[in-house]
Formats: sequence, structure tokens, C-alpha cells
Amino acid sequence: MKIVIIGSGNVAYHLAKAFTQNNIEVSQIFGRNEVELNKISEELNIPYSTKELADADLYLISVSDSAVEQVSDLIRTEKALVAHTSGSLPIETLKGNYRKASFYPLQTFSKTKNLEYSKIPFFIEAENQIDEKSLFELASLISDNVETSDYEKRKYIHLTAVFACNFVNHLFARAKEISDSQDLDFNYFIPLIDETVEKIHHLEPKSAQTGPAVRGDERILKLHEELITNDEHLKIYNTMNESIQKMYQ
Amino acid sequence: MKIVIIGSGNVAYHLAKAFTQNNIEVSQIFGRNEVELNKISEELNIPYSTKELADADLYLISVSDSAVEQVSDLIRTEKALVAHTSGSLPIETLKGNYRKASFYPLQTFSKTKNLEYSKIPFFIEAENQIDEKSLFELASLISDNVETSDYEKRKYIHLTAVFACNFVNHLFARAKEISDSQDLDFNYFIPLIDETVEKIHHLEPKSAQTGPAVRGDERILKLHEELITNDEHLKIYNTMNESIQKMYQ
Repeated sequence: MKIVIIGSGNVAYHLAKAFTQNNIEVSQIFGRNEVELNKISEELNIPYSTKELADADLYLISVSDSAVEQVSDLIRTEKALVAHTSGSLPIETLKGNYRKASFYPLQTFSKTKNLEYSKIPFFIEAENQIDEKSLFELASLISDNVETSDYEKRKYIHLTAVFACNFVNHLFARAKEISDSQDLDFNYFIPLIDETVEKIHHLEPKSAQTGPAVRGDERILKLHEELITNDEHLKIYNTMNESIQKMYQ
Repeated sequence: MKIVIIGSGNVAYHLAKAFTQNNIEVSQIFGRNEVELNKISEELNIPYSTKELADADLYLISVSDSAVEQVSDLIRTEKALVAHTSGSLPIETLKGNYRKASFYPLQTFSKTKNLEYSKIPFFIEAENQIDEKSLFELASLISDNVETSDYEKRKYIHLTAVFACNFVNHLFARAKEISDSQDLDFNYFIPLIDETVEKIHHLEPKSAQTGPAVRGDERILKLHEELITNDEHLKIYNTMNESIQKMYQ
């Protein structure tokens, strides 16, 4: 199966790397950003182009959601299978007379961070069983954790991921603002953060809850409100505490 | 130094265990909850009492914040050093004519979860340098990460911890509600959560931010709002996204 990856962002880079590491040839990476394409090309030894899209059996479109439709229109063959890698788009976003699919890796990707690809869940959708099977097998060469998933399921997977990953990271960023404001070393908090996550490998998150809100400790809640000087911090503080208190009412 | 621990909750248990593992004798655990005291006593081979507080050089009070003052009044000797383990109380909360101190381990504790004590930051405060030094040395027998900290600093450490730990865990609990509502296996999200935290070992949380809000992807934000049926989820969703967008404005 001849594979072309379209895109040069975090997901495109890591997919290309995951394939390469597992001895699956990627024939071309295609995109607009020549600087990024060139870097990926040099690191992974994959030809790139910004102009001529190579022929392929499978095109994987890893561009931002808002660009998927336009990019999908560049593929003019009817013989190919075309999959996007988005958690929040139906396969019908792909515009063309080819077979359509979704190939969604559930992970947060940064180019500077190595990943253990075998642990990443991949969610597959295709228009027919043959394509579904071939994408399933392809993903299984990278990962031990491959599932089929239609758009309905995928949407909720992505929404859950926003809470469990994007919002969690934002809390770390806001926590660091508080700690920076007092010249505290943010490294103090790393063992605590590690343990917070380690816990939910073994406990239900709901049972693992600690802190003043779940204990109903009004004195500390009030003390913290007085310490907080940033409006955004205060909004988060109040929203989260109210939500905690409602959950354990 | 003869040590007595007062309390039978998560912190009391883990302190007793950390001392025992490091061959530091705990003379007694004292408290009201005989069932819990008995369990700790059997596991760690430490005498317990609910009635007679043993004589000690150091009393460590590990009870809920609201009970510290009352419990501290049980100690009638003037010769002892008495420390509480709270992040949000001044040492003046301790009522008695003894030397007062704080011995604050920055971690989230559950009895059912083993911990690597050497990594836990301990923050020490005492009224005089001799006591500070002896508590510092005691904590250093357990942990590689001991600092002094007055109440001003400790308050902000605790506030930061609420954002980085308590609120993060609550996001996991709310994320699991979404995933449960669609019969998704929450284990799908564990590699994502692990990576979210692994990232901030290497990157600034602010630089590691991903997701629709930081990309300004209004289509997905609107789609998610439509998917969310729970008021608390929606409040968190909007508060966090607004905060993310303000941070990167």
C-alpha cells in the first residue's frame, strides 16, 4: 500500500515517524510549509513536495480541521482511499470521488516530544469493510490499541479528551502562574502532579478526589479566594469548586 | 527523638509508614477512630491509643484543618515540639505552651496507594532555628526534597496544589462522566493523560497547550457545546475555554 501523508504539523510528523519506525514506507509528505516538510524529510528520509502530490493508495490528511475540506479537494484520483486524522470531523468533510475514512490517533502531539506509539489508541472508520480492515491492520502495525469508531463516538472521544488533556494542561499553566507570582519553584509540584495521574491508574477519579471543596472546608475556600488576585484564576477556582461540591452533594 | 503522630487519616498513615520504612521509631499513633488506628497499628507495628496520649519530644498533628486547634489543646506538656502538617494553617493555630512548628508534605495521599516518599517535598517552619534544623533533618531522612517555608509561602503552595492536583482530578472525574455516558472505555484516555503530564516534565505548560480553544477553532467549540448536556460540564467547558483564549490573546 503506497502511503502519502498530507500536512507537516505535529500529527503528520508523528504519524510519519511511527510508520517509519515500524518499517512502513511513506512515499511522500506533502504540504505548504516547506521549512517543516524539509525538516521531517531530512529526519525520516521521506521525499516531500509542496507542488506535486504523488500517486498513492492511501492519503492521510493531517492538517488543521478547518483546512481538511480544501486539502481533500486536491486529491483527484478515484482509486485512492483518503482518511483524515481529526476527532471532530465526519468523513463526509472529505470532498472527492474517492473512498473516505477516518484514522484518528488519540494523543497530544508535540514535535519535540518522543512518544511510545504502541500505546496510542487509534480509531478507524471507513465506508466499506475492506477499507476498514486494511486501515485497522495498518494501525495495528503501529499500535496495540486499535478500535473502530463512527463519527458519533469519535466526537465524544474528542470532547472527553479536551477535558482530560487540554483543560488539564491549562490548569497546569494557571497553577504555574500562581507559583511564579510567589517565586516558588514549579518543580515542587511535579511529584504531586505525577501522583495525581498515577492514582487514576488504580482508582476511580471520583473516589480519588481530595482538597478543600470535597471536604467542605469553607475556611480554606475563603482564604484561597482572598489570596487570588487574577480574575481568570478566580473564575476557574469558583467554577471548579462548585462543580466538585455538586458532584459529592 | 520520641515521636507521636496524632490522627489516623491518609496523611497520618503515610507519615507513620514513611518513618517506619526509614527506621525512625514512632512511639504511638493517637486518635479517635479506633478502627483506623488499629489497622495502622497492625500494619506498621506501632502502639496506638484513643485515650492516653504518650509523652513525646515531637507531636505531629495530622488531622483535618478544622480539628487542628482542638486537638493541639490535648498536648499539655511545655517541653515538646508540636507540628501540624497542614498547608493552610499558621503555626499559631496550635494552642499550647509548647514550641510550635509546621511539617507540610506536598502530596496527595490515599491509604490504598503506595508512594515514593523520597520524592515528596516537605516544607518546614519552626519558631526557632534549633527546632527548624531538627525537623529539617527528620524530613531529610524521608525525603530528598526538604525546604523551609513560612505560612505566607505555604498558603500559596497549597493554592497552587489545588489547581494542579484537586482540580485536575476533578476534570478526570468529569471527563469520565462524558466517556461513561457514551459507553466509552475510560482506559482509552490513560495514555493521553499520561502524556499530558509527561509533557510538562520537559515543556512549559503554557507552550504545551493544544486543543480547539488555543487554536481558535470556533466550529469545534460550538460542536462541543451542542454535545454537552450537563450544566456543570458546560460551565467548566466555557470557563476553561475563555481562560485559555485570554491567556494566548
